[in-house]
Amino acid sequence: MLRSTVAIAVAALALTALAAGAADAQQLEANKKIVVEFYDKAINQKDFEAASKYLGSRYTQHNPNAADGPEGLKAFLQFLKEKFPASRSEIKRVFADGDYVIVHVHAVREPGTRGNAIIDVFKLENGKIVEHWDVLQPIPEKAANINGMF
Amino acid sequence: MLRSTVAIAVAALALTALAAGAADAQQLEANKKIVVEFYDKAINQKDFEAASKYLGSRYTQHNPNAADGPEGLKAFLQFLKEKFPASRSEIKRVFADGDYVIVHVHAVREPGTRGNAIIDVFKLENGKIVEHWDVLQPIPEKAANINGMF
Repeated sequence: MLRSTVAIAVAALALTALAAGAADAQQLEANKKIVVEFYDKAINQKDFEAASKYLGSRYTQHNPNAADGPEGLKAFLQFLKEKFPASRSEIKRVFADGDYVIVHVHAVREPGTRGNAIIDVFKLENGKIVEHWDVLQPIPEKAANINGMF
Repeated sequence: MLRSTVAIAVAALALTALAAGAADAQQLEANKKIVVEFYDKAINQKDFEAASKYLGSRYTQHNPNAADGPEGLKAFLQFLKEKFPASRSEIKRVFADGDYVIVHVHAVREPGTRGNAIIDVFKLENGKIVEHWDVLQPIPEKAANINGMF
């Protein structure tokens, strides 16, 4: 009886901890999905209404060319629509750690050009995007290795 | 007796899965530590001998300015030593997901200059660094927000 009770208690504790770990893993995957969908709706579809649903009560911007908040995103998407309507961004890999999702992106503003390598970092709170950092580098014509930037 | 046996079996299974999850989390932290140490020895200390110990049997390079393999790193550190001996890089945040570690870095080649924002991605195999991607952007003088690039 004692052995049974102890085993049940251990099983319950272990399953609780296991469930917490699984929930963490699920949250990371859910965060990745949110960012990938947001990215497509914003940068590829250039659909501010659809993209803005993914933003939280704040959208703190670290890209030096964009203003804070949804208004900054709206202005950027308007710029893309007007100047680079055929621009496309392809997410090459996506990572998640804690509240952060990182995407490695090949962004081409005009079809047929080499485009830019970009890595974006998004912070999420309660399933919403609240902060953004990025780094952008034009892909050079020649390289010291044959591996490409991705 | 049956209840006891089932409970023990469930406890054993749950604990095994839990241990696997804990091992994964430990591996992510270990990978972060490896990359942070490598980064300091390579980019700040410019000590190729010390840094090369962190590399695996291959070091596939995606930075367009660097050649593959340890020789590419050696040449880059020699360039830093000669041209920018006072260069410093500060890791602002570090992430890990699976075999990958991502660092967000403020790199200043000459003290007093604004420097570059860099995001590096490293792939690890068996605790060794085997592949590297990065994106680099000069920090501009003026920005459309007050948050800085970090």
